[in-house]
Amino acid sequence: MLQKLKERVVEANRELERRGLVIYTWGNVSGILRDEGLVVIKPSGVPYEDLAPDNMVVLDLEGNVVEGSLRPSSDTPTHLELYRRFPEAGGIVHTHSSWATIWAQAGKPIPCLGTTHADYFYGEIPCTRPLTKAEVEEDYELNTGRVIGEVFQEKNYKHVPGVLVAEHGPFTWGKDPEEAVYNSVVMEQLAMMAYHTVALVGEVKPISTHVADKHYMRKHGPNAYYGQK
Amino acid sequence: MLQKLKERVVEANRELERRGLVIYTWGNVSGILRDEGLVVIKPSGVPYEDLAPDNMVVLDLEGNVVEGSLRPSSDTPTHLELYRRFPEAGGIVHTHSSWATIWAQAGKPIPCLGTTHADYFYGEIPCTRPLTKAEVEEDYELNTGRVIGEVFQEKNYKHVPGVLVAEHGPFTWGKDPEEAVYNSVVMEQLAMMAYHTVALVGEVKPISTHVADKHYMRKHGPNAYYGQK
Amino acid sequence: MLQKLKERVVEANRELERRGLVIYTWGNVSGILRDEGLVVIKPSGVPYEDLAPDNMVVLDLEGNVVEGSLRPSSDTPTHLELYRRFPEAGGIVHTHSSWATIWAQAGKPIPCLGTTHADYFYGEIPCTRPLTKAEVEEDYELNTGRVIGEVFQEKNYKHVPGVLVAEHGPFTWGKDPEEAVYNSVVMEQLAMMAYHTVALVGEVKPISTHVADKHYMRKHGPNAYYGQK
Amino acid sequence: MLQKLKERVVEANRELERRGLVIYTWGNVSGILRDEGLVVIKPSGVPYEDLAPDNMVVLDLEGNVVEGSLRPSSDTPTHLELYRRFPEAGGIVHTHSSWATIWAQAGKPIPCLGTTHADYFYGEIPCTRPLTKAEVEEDYELNTGRVIGEVFQEKNYKHVPGVLVAEHGPFTWGKDPEEAVYNSVVMEQLAMMAYHTVALVGEVKPISTHVADKHYMRKHGPNAYYGQK
Repeated sequence: MLQKLKERVVEANRELERRGLVIYTWGNVSGILRDEGLVVIKPSGVPYEDLAPDNMVVLDLEGNVVEGSLRPSSDTPTHLELYRRFPEAGGIVHTHSSWATIWAQAGKPIPCLGTTHADYFYGEIPCTRPLTKAEVEEDYELNTGRVIGEVFQEKNYKHVPGVLVAEHGPFTWGKDPEEAVYNSVVMEQLAMMAYHTVALVGEVKPISTHVADKHYMRKHGPNAYYGQK
Repeated sequence: MLQKLKERVVEANRELERRGLVIYTWGNVSGILRDEGLVVIKPSGVPYEDLAPDNMVVLDLEGNVVEGSLRPSSDTPTHLELYRRFPEAGGIVHTHSSWATIWAQAGKPIPCLGTTHADYFYGEIPCTRPLTKAEVEEDYELNTGRVIGEVFQEKNYKHVPGVLVAEHGPFTWGKDPEEAVYNSVVMEQLAMMAYHTVALVGEVKPISTHVADKHYMRKHGPNAYYGQK
Repeated sequence: MLQKLKERVVEANRELERRGLVIYTWGNVSGILRDEGLVVIKPSGVPYEDLAPDNMVVLDLEGNVVEGSLRPSSDTPTHLELYRRFPEAGGIVHTHSSWATIWAQAGKPIPCLGTTHADYFYGEIPCTRPLTKAEVEEDYELNTGRVIGEVFQEKNYKHVPGVLVAEHGPFTWGKDPEEAVYNSVVMEQLAMMAYHTVALVGEVKPISTHVADKHYMRKHGPNAYYGQK
Repeated sequence: MLQKLKERVVEANRELERRGLVIYTWGNVSGILRDEGLVVIKPSGVPYEDLAPDNMVVLDLEGNVVEGSLRPSSDTPTHLELYRRFPEAGGIVHTHSSWATIWAQAGKPIPCLGTTHADYFYGEIPCTRPLTKAEVEEDYELNTGRVIGEVFQEKNYKHVPGVLVAEHGPFTWGKDPEEAVYNSVVMEQLAMMAYHTVALVGEVKPISTHVADKHYMRKHGPNAYYGQK
């Protein structure tokens, strides 16, 4: 199981590069075995083409390295905090993909302006508050996970599988590493289209609730009819 | 004939991906045999690389599945409504291509600002009204076809082979699936250029009627002289 | 010589597609043998992959077809007019490349905002006036060449090897077909950068004359020192 | 050593093209052997595919050609001036990459709006003043190096490994040619994202000092923990 997860995490990291979400080493994917409480994550600063199951880093949910000789991604404490808070997340992704990062730099949520968005994210994609000086200086990456957590005290992380960290960039998650990557690709596309829609019409209003409900529910509701059974 | 159409519909769907109009499963192409009254359409949620003539779905114009074990595209009722309304349409395409979707999200028609547009679409590319709550909740996809139909009560669908559905994205059509895809590629390019032209000059006025007429007619009029005989 | 020119014109047309300036059949390149007074041009509406020396069209400067069984590009009368007016032009290109076309649709010249521009075009890239109704209805393509000619009554076509036709798109030229294509690629890049510079700073002023002179002259002046002897 | 540096400079120049920073011959990379005082630089106007260790140009820091039969890049005097001023620079890059050039044409520094920027450049990426007429007419390329030098009288070139030359484009440097190219790729991405962030929010304020410090220091400070030991 662990070996299989390492292989999937390697592939999911490489998919970030194939999908144009990252250059150099600018993103990381992790996956978790919930029963064992083990997280597999990309090693820090290693190019995607050099990734292999054997150089993945395995940690427990408290951050103790269980396997692997390399340092884990510097964003590891953020991943772990999210796994602790989101009990059904099976994979997490962080990137600096261009359009999502532009919204994060602007400190603005991505409004839901069409059915493409509604198909995957129920309502706007929120943006965290900036971290305080104290939060940055002590346990920066852990506190990044905490400010994300604040946002989801009032939102269902399963209906909104991603977030922008202000001044920084996007995080997404899913039931497994592949779905987390998928949601990153979708968010990037939504961010690009929302950006230009706003620029074209100025003040925008989100799409009507009935369209958002319809599209989210036809894919994710109990009577979903998109895709195959 | 049906076998041949299935092959062409598979290829036309794949062409959407090659031309950069779709990611994942975000678009669908259908084709019709008018004499038999049979429509061939992509199955829902199946990646383009997995498409094959054998997994295409065949329906009659009332939506009864005639062949195929997979669910048809969730947008099938929209396609069928358009085939019923547009008697010479031989192929229909729906995508969420970026620039056309941006205009759809803005709820604005794409103005005719140059000869590139006039070569293929006579006048602006219209945008439907948003659907009402009742239209969304009951027969959403069929009603999407109906609001498109409203727009073409006053426009000739053969001179304007595409439309934007507000809050959603573009549909195009043509004499066959290949031409419908071609018109989607063209609309995406027109949408991109119109977007930036508007941003550059602010209030824009469409190109003069004589230039629009000239370009549309030199390609599509009775004395067309573009291309080979 | 004619055979060789046909081969070069084929390659120059294909280069338009490789460089991303055209989709489908949206551009054409021609070349001229001045001594023979023969122009070689792409046939109308033929995809780039189907071009071959044998299907090129050869005309004299009055537009009589000398060789070839296909119709020449519908823009042929524009090419011929430019060859008649610009005696040292050896190749001409017309495309609907995105960024140059955006400026053409806006009806605005591309201002010279940096040394990249000054390296190839001395001063702004002009935009023609729109054609009148009469000019469009009678001899449209010839009159397109004439309004370009108007612009160059006061400009040296050798220092400004390209132009925007209002509501339409760009034309470029050069000492041979390859240089004409090169200038189209350059103009597209200049158009993209000028667009965004203007959007960033609002009202812009062109670069100082001494920088424009320096860059143009170090590449094209009598004491040029860019490149190899 | 010199042979090895020639090979690395060839590869670094080609990397510019692979990364989409240059078309044709629009950029150059150099490297230096500090002990020997020898600079290896791209020949002027030679396409990247024709570069080979044997056609690189070798100069001393005063600009005397020591090896090579081709003319060096016309920007060579700028490179040499920067090597003289920045004693730990081991490689220098100049390009006309689109987004960095847009900021240079606007004459504006690239503000630090997110952690992507802070990871590599400490604070804004400055823009030089425009050169005076006298500076352009006499020793243009040398004076380009000098106005860059002015900017770094008050900035540490090792913490801000790049600059925009007004009306022109970017220069970057690093401990070796590869790092200088890396910094060019990063700057282009930062320029693209900063451009759109500014367009989205209008007046922007840079990210908080504590986030900028944190990110720069976790990669480059004495206790850096990004990447492997």
